[in-house]
Amino acid sequence: MTLLELATKARDSKYDVAALTTKAKNDAILSVADALEANATDIISANAIDMKNGEAKGLSVGLLDRLKLDEARIKGMADGLREVVKLEDPIGKVTEEFTRPNGLNIKKRLVPIGVVGVIYEARPNVTADVFGLCFKTGNAVILKGGSDALESNKAIVKVIKEALVSNNLPVDAITLIEDTSRESTKEMMRLNGYIDVLIPRGGAGLIKSVVENASVPVIETGSGNCHIYVDYDADIDMAINIIINAKTQRIGVCNAAESLVIHEAIAEKLLPKLGDALREKGVQIFADEKSRPYINGAEAATEKDFGTEYLDYIISVKTVSSVEEAIAHINKYNTGHSEAIITKDNANAEKFLNGIDASCVYVNASTRFTDGFEFGFGAEIGISTQKLHARGPMGLLALTSYKYTIYGDGQVRQ
Amino acid sequence: MTLLELATKARDSKYDVAALTTKAKNDAILSVADALEANATDIISANAIDMKNGEAKGLSVGLLDRLKLDEARIKGMADGLREVVKLEDPIGKVTEEFTRPNGLNIKKRLVPIGVVGVIYEARPNVTADVFGLCFKTGNAVILKGGSDALESNKAIVKVIKEALVSNNLPVDAITLIEDTSRESTKEMMRLNGYIDVLIPRGGAGLIKSVVENASVPVIETGSGNCHIYVDYDADIDMAINIIINAKTQRIGVCNAAESLVIHEAIAEKLLPKLGDALREKGVQIFADEKSRPYINGAEAATEKDFGTEYLDYIISVKTVSSVEEAIAHINKYNTGHSEAIITKDNANAEKFLNGIDASCVYVNASTRFTDGFEFGFGAEIGISTQKLHARGPMGLLALTSYKYTIYGDGQVRQ
Repeated sequence: MTLLELATKARDSKYDVAALTTKAKNDAILSVADALEANATDIISANAIDMKNGEAKGLSVGLLDRLKLDEARIKGMADGLREVVKLEDPIGKVTEEFTRPNGLNIKKRLVPIGVVGVIYEARPNVTADVFGLCFKTGNAVILKGGSDALESNKAIVKVIKEALVSNNLPVDAITLIEDTSRESTKEMMRLNGYIDVLIPRGGAGLIKSVVENASVPVIETGSGNCHIYVDYDADIDMAINIIINAKTQRIGVCNAAESLVIHEAIAEKLLPKLGDALREKGVQIFADEKSRPYINGAEAATEKDFGTEYLDYIISVKTVSSVEEAIAHINKYNTGHSEAIITKDNANAEKFLNGIDASCVYVNASTRFTDGFEFGFGAEIGISTQKLHARGPMGLLALTSYKYTIYGDGQVRQ
Repeated sequence: MTLLELATKARDSKYDVAALTTKAKNDAILSVADALEANATDIISANAIDMKNGEAKGLSVGLLDRLKLDEARIKGMADGLREVVKLEDPIGKVTEEFTRPNGLNIKKRLVPIGVVGVIYEARPNVTADVFGLCFKTGNAVILKGGSDALESNKAIVKVIKEALVSNNLPVDAITLIEDTSRESTKEMMRLNGYIDVLIPRGGAGLIKSVVENASVPVIETGSGNCHIYVDYDADIDMAINIIINAKTQRIGVCNAAESLVIHEAIAEKLLPKLGDALREKGVQIFADEKSRPYINGAEAATEKDFGTEYLDYIISVKTVSSVEEAIAHINKYNTGHSEAIITKDNANAEKFLNGIDASCVYVNASTRFTDGFEFGFGAEIGISTQKLHARGPMGLLALTSYKYTIYGDGQVRQ
């Protein structure tokens, strides 16, 4: 089938998916979870082809690890789906109700978005994960996974479709685009009237390409050039503890810290100890002129360092003479993701919270908490770095829209 | 100045605009209102140039009427701004607050979007209107008005900028793009990093072009192929009253009815009387085969009629044999704007409300109520026909985003 034929089937199924009861959706998700475990052998065989191709192609150890599926990971996918079943179904919820002087009763009701398109890299667990979140919210989903995971994704989607069929549910609630060419990706980005929203999940290059080329609405996710600003009076141990956590607990993630902003009044007290702690974790440090003398083994930072999301054991250091300068520096280089201040000064904390332009702004905590689960949403479809529709960690609500239903008894406009 | 230089100034001013107190914003809007009235003569002189050019160019009477400014219309603009001052300022409002088991306190706070771009046609009143709504919500605004209104817009923006300066407020809170070329419009649509959201207001052609060419996030507004479905048991007088209102009260607007869907069981009773009432108002009727015999003077409808937003004294008629068929027909042809059912059957009303995919779905009322003022929002920046961020009439809230502020006492992620 062509992409347009696939998209037409997805679109034609969306009203059927939207009309499903919570029970029907939950039953189906549970039976998908069971089916994934029951068909683990087939899925692992398919994954073995991807792994073999990936090794031959010379994929990095990290990418191969993300690609690999085994019994435990398939159980993890299934358990993830079972968790989604436990979440409250937002669809149909009335979030506002008001009656106008002319008697019109207006209700704002949560509805599915319709057809959600997701473009992602070679991480087959995302396939089941995204299906669960979209189906729970009554959306049909069109998936375009990385070519390196094609066989794994085909096997997973086959299991999901079979489970849907055996539940008498719309089989086109999930569609996998098997043509992994760039042309097909570009075509997908311009399927206005078929795809209601496109969510790219992956590296900066993928996201940039989607933002630049898509004509369907996009929710931009991902890239995080996150800063931690240490104010003049910060608790030194707290600052070091938070910075080590934010930089090194997991380096390849979007909410990891990439740059430090240090008030010059605390530099001499903080930086020698902090520098040692970072180097002990294997972190390379690029520091500006004022901070470098305090950090053993630091190299000179250039302007480019401040704008780089390293996703590696590397961090940059910039000194400032006020919280205002810190805010201006961060707003120049941040990507709207997560930013933190370490301070005891409440007025400066408020200035920072108000002034920083990002989805999540922290006082005295690690940026690593920007996450749907850590926020208590029970799920995460991604982290939005844009300002429309959804900002920050996106749970089920980000996969809903709303409609107004208006009850009258013959009203006409004057 | 080049467009990029203008956009840079707007972007650089956005944090200053965002930080203004409600009082500072209200005072400024009031002084703009006064200044518009005080400078009415200058604005009317500038408008006279546009009117003369427009007449020479052969603009239609309707377009010339939208373009024209006089004392009364300038007072209308000023009064509109004074109304905006009375509205509650949403910025800073905490809409959710929760504390996680680890003690992190998370607040969701409304913030301005940043820089709002608006592309619109030759209606100079929109210039003041959009400024008021964006400024009230702490946004900087970049305006690109239709070339036919350039002199009027320049005069209005000059007055606004002077009022901002005399209040010691950021003069770049409003920017008018004076280069009205298509190239400049295309450049504007791709100013990622400068413009946070683009709102096109105007005809279907303009909106389509923005959706297809923009790389900045867009809120799609406007086009409305609105239907009224008359169910088998509808009150005939109510149906006729609502249809006449929705079709003829104002023909050139997006919430006017363009197509009727009639249950075949009521056709014989309803259509002769309805047809006469429509023809009395000068409405031309394109009817399908089953309905045509009942309507004096009706012409044969083609498939194309059902997909056409006439914006004129024309309407199409389609018969169906069930509410399900009505829903399927409407979902095939509607533009996600406003749809209505006239019925006494509550079960059918619920089916219609649930099944129709549109921003506003009415039971026994005219589609003409889809409007920010009629909904009680006190303002309207447009009517969104897309599903992300804002759907339906958009008031001040549609011009806000949110950020999460997170207060900790040293928490790190495990």
